[in-house]
Order: sequence, then C-alpha cells, then structure tokens
Amino acid sequence: MKIAILGHGTVGRGVDEIITNRLEEVEVARILELPDRLTDERMTSDYSQIVGDPSIDLVVECMGGLEPAHTFIMDALAAGKSVVTSNKAVVAAYFEEFARQARTSGASLLIEASVGGGIPWIASIEKARRIDEVISFYGIMNGTTNYIVDAMVKEGADFEDVLRRAQELGYAERDPSADIDGIDVKNKTIISASVAFDVACTSDFPVTGIRTLTKADLDALRKLGRGVKLLGRGVMEKGSYAVAVEPVAVPLDSLEANVPSNFNLVTFDATTVGELKFYGQGAGMLPTGNAMVQDVLDFAAGRRPSYDFSSDLAYDPTLLTSDYVFRTKADVAGALEIEGGLKVVRGATAQDARAILETALASDPTSFMAALPQED
Amino acid sequence: MKIAILGHGTVGRGVDEIITNRLEEVEVARILELPDRLTDERMTSDYSQIVGDPSIDLVVECMGGLEPAHTFIMDALAAGKSVVTSNKAVVAAYFEEFARQARTSGASLLIEASVGGGIPWIASIEKARRIDEVISFYGIMNGTTNYIVDAMVKEGADFEDVLRRAQELGYAERDPSADIDGIDVKNKTIISASVAFDVACTSDFPVTGIRTLTKADLDALRKLGRGVKLLGRGVMEKGSYAVAVEPVAVPLDSLEANVPSNFNLVTFDATTVGELKFYGQGAGMLPTGNAMVQDVLDFAAGRRPSYDFSSDLAYDPTLLTSDYVFRTKADVAGALEIEGGLKVVRGATAQDARAILETALASDPTSFMAALPQED
Repeated sequence: MKIAILGHGTVGRGVDEIITNRLEEVEVARILELPDRLTDERMTSDYSQIVGDPSIDLVVECMGGLEPAHTFIMDALAAGKSVVTSNKAVVAAYFEEFARQARTSGASLLIEASVGGGIPWIASIEKARRIDEVISFYGIMNGTTNYIVDAMVKEGADFEDVLRRAQELGYAERDPSADIDGIDVKNKTIISASVAFDVACTSDFPVTGIRTLTKADLDALRKLGRGVKLLGRGVMEKGSYAVAVEPVAVPLDSLEANVPSNFNLVTFDATTVGELKFYGQGAGMLPTGNAMVQDVLDFAAGRRPSYDFSSDLAYDPTLLTSDYVFRTKADVAGALEIEGGLKVVRGATAQDARAILETALASDPTSFMAALPQED
Repeated sequence: MKIAILGHGTVGRGVDEIITNRLEEVEVARILELPDRLTDERMTSDYSQIVGDPSIDLVVECMGGLEPAHTFIMDALAAGKSVVTSNKAVVAAYFEEFARQARTSGASLLIEASVGGGIPWIASIEKARRIDEVISFYGIMNGTTNYIVDAMVKEGADFEDVLRRAQELGYAERDPSADIDGIDVKNKTIISASVAFDVACTSDFPVTGIRTLTKADLDALRKLGRGVKLLGRGVMEKGSYAVAVEPVAVPLDSLEANVPSNFNLVTFDATTVGELKFYGQGAGMLPTGNAMVQDVLDFAAGRRPSYDFSSDLAYDPTLLTSDYVFRTKADVAGALEIEGGLKVVRGATAQDARAILETALASDPTSFMAALPQED
C-alpha cells in the first residue's frame, strides 16, 4: 500500500521512521513539505501531486493547526483517499464535516492518535460499541498539565516554576494556554464524546484549566484526602448527554491521583464490559507515530471506521452534577466554608460551577475551582 | 454466522445472552450440555452433532478444566472450526498443540478472555507486535487475590477472614489454591508470555502465591513505602526471556498499589509505543462473556490470529533479578536484617528467591517472600 505523509516535523518523521524501518507492506511514497524543506526525493510542496495520484490510498496528516490541514483533509477525502490524523484541533472543529465527506466518498477517517497518543483509546471505544453502549468516560488527557501538577505535588514547587521547566524540557509550548487553560483537553473531549456517544458534540460546554492552581490548593485538598487532576469527562443517560473539562479533586488512592509525569489515563464505562482504563504516553514522536501507523495498518487490514453521529442525544447539563470546591476571595453565594478557607457548593452542575468561577474571577483573578465528587 | 457454545454455565450463559440480545449477525445455533440439562432446543449432549455440522464456523468453549475441553478444542480445530475460549488452564497446558492444529487446519484460536476478563489484553499485545517488539509485561492478573489483599489493607483484616468472605461472595472457590497459590496467574503468565514473546512458554518457572501473607507483613512493608500485589511478569532481552509469578512489594504511589477490589491491571512495554496499562474486571459473567463475544466479532470481521512460537528465545533466569524481602524464622544466608524483622536479599533471581523460600518454608511454614524492586 502506498501512502503520503503531510508534514515532516516531529510526528511526521516518527511515522516515516516507523513505517520505513519496521513495515514491508506499506510504502511512504510522497511527503508534503514547505518549498524550502524538500530534502528527500519523495518530497513535494505541491499537494495536487499527492491528491491527484491514484496510486496513493491514504494520507497521513501530520501538520497540526486548522488550516491548511482542514482543506487538505477535505481534498483527500473528496478524492476518495482515506485520512489518518493526530490533529485534535482540526478533528474537534470539523469532525461532522469530515465524517460526511468520508461517507460520501467511501473513504475513512482514522483518528486514533488524536486522543491519548499511543493509547488504543478510539479503537477500544469503537470495539466496545460493537456490543455495548458507552455510558460515560473520563480521564487525564493532557500530559503537560499532568506533568505540572505531579511535579508541584512531588517537589512542593510553584506552578510558574514547574511550567517554566516544562517549557524548557519541551513538554509545554511557549504559549502554554492550549494546555493549561484546558483547550487541548476540550478538543479531546469533543472527539471522545462524539465517538463514544455517536453524537456531533460541539464546543459549547464548560471548560476550566489549571492556570490558577497553587501549591497551597494542593496542600489544602490533600488534607481532604484529595489530589487534583485536570479531567475531560462525559456522561450519557436516557437520551441525553453532557461533557465538561475541569480540575477534579480525585481521591488520593484513585489510580488517577497516582498517574505520574506526563502520562495519560483514560477510562470508559460500558454496559457489559464495565469500566476499562487505559494508560500510556499521551504524546511524543514515537507513541503518537505508533498510533498513526496502527491506524494505517488497521486500514490495510480492512477496518473502515465510519461516523454518522446518528444518536440524536439532547444536551442535558444536569447529568454532570457534583459538589465543587472554590478557593477565592470573592463571595460565593450558598457556599459552605470549610477548613483552609475553601468554599464548598453542594450539587452544582458543571455549567453552574463554571458560571460561579467566572463571577469569582472577575473580582479575584487568582480564584481556583475543582469538582469534588463524593467517594463511592 | 452460526456458532456453537460448549457449556451453559455462568460464562456460557453470558455469551449466549450477549449474542442473543445484542447481535443480529451471529446466531447461537447449538449448545453442548450434559444429558440431564437439555432445557432448550438448541442443546445437545452429543458433540458430534456440533463438530460434524458444516454450517457452524466457530465453537465457543465455556466448560473450563482440562478434559474434555482439550479434546473438544482439538476436535473442533481438526474439523476446521475456529475456537474461542476463556479457559486459561487448557490454553496454558496445550497452547502449542492447539496452535499447530489450528495452522494445519486453517482454523483460528481466539483467547482474549483467557487473561484479564473483559480487558483487551491479548488483542492489544498482538496489535503492538505488528509494529513493535514487546520487551516486558507485568500485572495484577487475578481478581480474587487482589480482593483479599485490598480488603486486608483497607480493613486491617486477617487473610483467613477475608478469604472466607471472598468464598461467601463467590469471588473465591471452595478450594482456593488455584488463586492464592498463584496457579491461575501462572496460567495467564504462560499465555501472556507466549503471545508477547512469540515463544512456547512452558510451566517450569518460579511461582509463589500469597497464602502466607499476614496483616503484619502488610504493615511492615507499608513502613517501607510499599504495598503487596501478586504479579505475573515476563521480560525479553537479547535472545532470551524469563517469567515469574510472585508477590511484589510495589511502591505505594504506583498504580498497581492502588488497584481496588477484584480488578486487574496489566502492563506491557514495547519498542515505540512505550508502556501501556490496561485496567478492568478480570472475571465475571458479563466481562468474560464480552471478551469472548469480541473474539467472535473479530473473527467475523476477518481477524485470524495465528501462533507459531517461532522466536527461538532461550530461557535466562538472570533476566528477572531483584532485591527480595523475607519474613521467616528460618535462617536466610546472606540476608540483611532490617526493621520489623524483615530479611533482605540483594540481587537474587526470581528462581533463587523461590529456592530460598522453599528452604525457609521447610522449617517455618508461615514464611513469606516478596520481590522488592528498586524504585525508578
């Protein structure tokens, strides 16, 4: 099988390396790169040479960003070529449009690498759905923020110091907002919910990151037997669903609380199989490259995932209801003040909790909030 | 597709229920049962009616035990029918014979449910091996012993009391030795190693259970920052491999230490994808039934796993070397006595540690041993 890779940056090189060194049955025939980076005879900067080449069955998009990735993916699908991508931003933004074009053209969209890096998350959800309904999912989906929180806990370090080190190590971007404000997890939550619940999940749901998390917050929550993890989550019940991204005060003896460094841990709960958890490197050249090559091999073996988002679920924010804990100088109506100056609101929806936080941030920009689920 | 189920006990009924209620494309055409239990027109006690029926493509073995399961599986494979089984004892004992017959007949042997219940463990190892070498695996593979240790820790209860309750709840058998002496984990370790390392792993390796574990041992190890888990593990390096089953003193902040109740957590490490962990219900009618039905659906979708154990690895016990901790009144040559009366032997192989334990057990039958791996 002949494929093309779009972009020869870190991930594109990883895919190229794995296929060239380890697989005989797949050939990287063309690589799209910028005109001043054509260092290899497979490379071209003219996309029409790829999309117009009938010998190429599949395109592996490793460019990142919304454009031109969105246009290139649409062009490939329209030409009947299947697409493998790790680009969570473009899939979250255009999943429904891509899926419709893929169905129309008889092509497939394979997105394993877009959530959880090398973890077989999307394929496992799809496999579970052959038999079961997926009734909920949640997880640590962003390695950068897990690295930051883990280092703050283990070293007693401040957020800013750890973030700076993460940037130096290349774990965090120069502009870290996609990670620390929860945008990356938001994209992964949209994709996970769309696949798990068979619904065109859109972007209008509560998203809170960990930008205002302090050492003192971690210490205060530890006294309550909790750690803090940034989780994406979703639940489906009786014809409705809800999703959210927010810090969650997880029990210290949960698996989530003990996930180290930049690893991911993602969980779904399904009708007969029950709760399954998956742990691994959520990013990196080789794990992400591995996930993309797995998609290439699945395609070669005949897997043809198709998404039609036909479940017609309504969005019901009350499905995600929990206690919430706030650390803020602002007044929080109806809150109960507990030890360490923390304010607890009982039984709020994720949406209401986010609204409370936004009000608090207006007067105290350092305000922090976490869901405080009751222990089982 | 028409299939037959052998045995209509707990797991057989689970498979029947899932297929009948949830799948349109698969029909349970025949069920093998004892002559006095033929309650359904699909049932027969005459196996020749199943193995001689050309309309049946696949046989789901849910009987357990070595015989007649072994003979029935061989007969089905010889007749060109593929076999799905959750029977770890029979697969561990006859894996090579089954695999050879399956290759000869062009049939497949599908064994997902034999390790880790509903966890997609075998399929994930096989998927990883399309690209990577699997270099090691380890995990909590037995829910009964995890339930016992977890309850001992959380309730400060004694081994015997928790075992009795586990038996009352149906988590443990009346004769608990397969669980607490590590036989069940041994079978799962044989199967995992065979698939992960492509080697006909046989039964001659060190196996230690948790029969002599006490509350006091857990307390003493907790002071060292460790919990105790019964792990099956294997490692492959430079043309050799080694496997073992033994209690391991895992760091309290590891995911393993925090696995609750009767759940399983299994891990493999592979060349490009790195470390992946999988968590879920390791037993039970619906999770195990789910795994078997997943195998049926994989087969229907064209997956044809084939095992030829062609890797030619040598067995090298030195690959599994660790510190070991003993609690025994017997003398342990070369051991360093530490706090709590524990004796530590540095850098022993699993095989040597097992020999030391056997000597100690001869004079002190209450002796307990755990591997004490150095922290990363």
